[in-house]
Amino acid sequence: MAGGVGAAKLLAGIVKVIDPKELTVIGNTGDDIELHGLHISPDLDIAAYTLAGIVDKTQGWGISGDTFQCLDALKTFSGFEWFHLGDRDLATHIFRTNLLRQGYSLSQVTQKVCVALGLKTTILPMTDDKFETRITTKAGTMHFEEYMVKRGAKDEVLGVEFYGAEKAKPAAGVVEAIENARRVVICPSNPVVSVGTILSVKGIREALKRTDAVKVGVSPIIGGKPVKGPADKLLRGLGCEVSAFAVTELYADFLDVFVIDIVDASEKERIEQLGVKVKVTNTVMRNMSDKVELAKTMLET
Amino acid sequence: MAGGVGAAKLLAGIVKVIDPKELTVIGNTGDDIELHGLHISPDLDIAAYTLAGIVDKTQGWGISGDTFQCLDALKTFSGFEWFHLGDRDLATHIFRTNLLRQGYSLSQVTQKVCVALGLKTTILPMTDDKFETRITTKAGTMHFEEYMVKRGAKDEVLGVEFYGAEKAKPAAGVVEAIENARRVVICPSNPVVSVGTILSVKGIREALKRTDAVKVGVSPIIGGKPVKGPADKLLRGLGCEVSAFAVTELYADFLDVFVIDIVDASEKERIEQLGVKVKVTNTVMRNMSDKVELAKTMLET
Repeated sequence: MAGGVGAAKLLAGIVKVIDPKELTVIGNTGDDIELHGLHISPDLDIAAYTLAGIVDKTQGWGISGDTFQCLDALKTFSGFEWFHLGDRDLATHIFRTNLLRQGYSLSQVTQKVCVALGLKTTILPMTDDKFETRITTKAGTMHFEEYMVKRGAKDEVLGVEFYGAEKAKPAAGVVEAIENARRVVICPSNPVVSVGTILSVKGIREALKRTDAVKVGVSPIIGGKPVKGPADKLLRGLGCEVSAFAVTELYADFLDVFVIDIVDASEKERIEQLGVKVKVTNTVMRNMSDKVELAKTMLET
Repeated sequence: MAGGVGAAKLLAGIVKVIDPKELTVIGNTGDDIELHGLHISPDLDIAAYTLAGIVDKTQGWGISGDTFQCLDALKTFSGFEWFHLGDRDLATHIFRTNLLRQGYSLSQVTQKVCVALGLKTTILPMTDDKFETRITTKAGTMHFEEYMVKRGAKDEVLGVEFYGAEKAKPAAGVVEAIENARRVVICPSNPVVSVGTILSVKGIREALKRTDAVKVGVSPIIGGKPVKGPADKLLRGLGCEVSAFAVTELYADFLDVFVIDIVDASEKERIEQLGVKVKVTNTVMRNMSDKVELAKTMLET
């Protein structure tokens, strides 16, 4: 189960440890947004581009070496400029939007994207239905990407809303993937707006409780701070503390093992009181060696 | 009244002779096509890019110096590659498609494109309604762009169909522009699939007959051959000869003056028997000086 950049790092390690065919990624679609009339699926694309080896490694998203001619020209027309879309990246969005308008589901389109990029791994959106993460701040309630990218995640989070969660069903294959898995890995993604969105889709949390798979998570919080992104603001927005413990609490009803960083070793005892085993190791992924080591821990603990 | 590349050359001359604000272009939309889910308006864009000074002068269409990163990546997904769309050009199509889906008319969108490109000239699509030129060949009936671009206009033309012409109404402003004009210039465009399409929209031919404007055309056929494009095949497909005379016949019911090339001077008498005055001059536009000279002839004869 994967969000964006942090998840992609771990996925890159996982496919070095197991046959990529054996991996199914369940991706967050709460960040999906329509811009310029195109359907953008940021987290699905980050996973696909990373596994295809074409991701822009500096940013963690977009395509390496991409140009921005189309976006630059679009600014002439719409003045719209807060979301960066490269020329090659736009091809994915144009292709996806065209097929969605023809009646294909997001999971069908995602499969076509993966095949075209030569992936052996299956990437499934958490849902094919409309789902949108909205953040409430003093400036109002807005789409997650507006909070995150346009406003730089600077606002205090007063609330999080999963628009569409009431009606959203898991995409075809999601529940089966969880039920048939030998292991479910919860990537070090934002526990609220990445993993939390996936868990909010009715049937997914139940499948996680039901499956015989070993469920292993890893903390995106190290030393009381998120490795990347606004997880701290979002946890506080939910009234949670910002700690590996707080993340575990969100997963405790289904999780078997939680991997925490060495700097958080002191939290081990408290977390284990939640009924979750703890593995303490280095969880910071600075290079491929770190990614592979963490992947091994996630798959073998 | 304008089609594509030939028309754009003359338009470039016209705006050197009169205030660009005084010019209204009525553009052919029979070539419009949806590709990759995007609405492409080839002739409207050729006119807009030319008047904005950004057209690729070698090709006569597209944007000067444009790159093709997005299209190259799109090929990975769809294998679709016969229609060239540059990265900056795509911005126009994305912007247009987005607004059309929001309910704007093609003429409203075209106006926004023109304003964004800094044009003082008004460009009006001939119609806001669905209209598609289809060409019948031995290989079947196909969209004009498929005949023209994909198959290189190599097929013998067995028939021409204006799909949608029965219901298409002139776009807002088209009839008024003709009625209020001091002069109507019929550009040296394909008489069948560029000017012929415009004339097929109900109400436009009637407005041309009704208006007090002087109506001046110029032959796209010189010495029995089209200057560019497949006008010869299309005229033959309609059972016409390929000559300045044959073109005049198609316009004779409303045209006041027809400008023909020096090499066709011998046709003058025959054409004038159709009730149309003839002006013989150089009509080949090799450079800006030629364009300006022809523009003066069109505006002052």
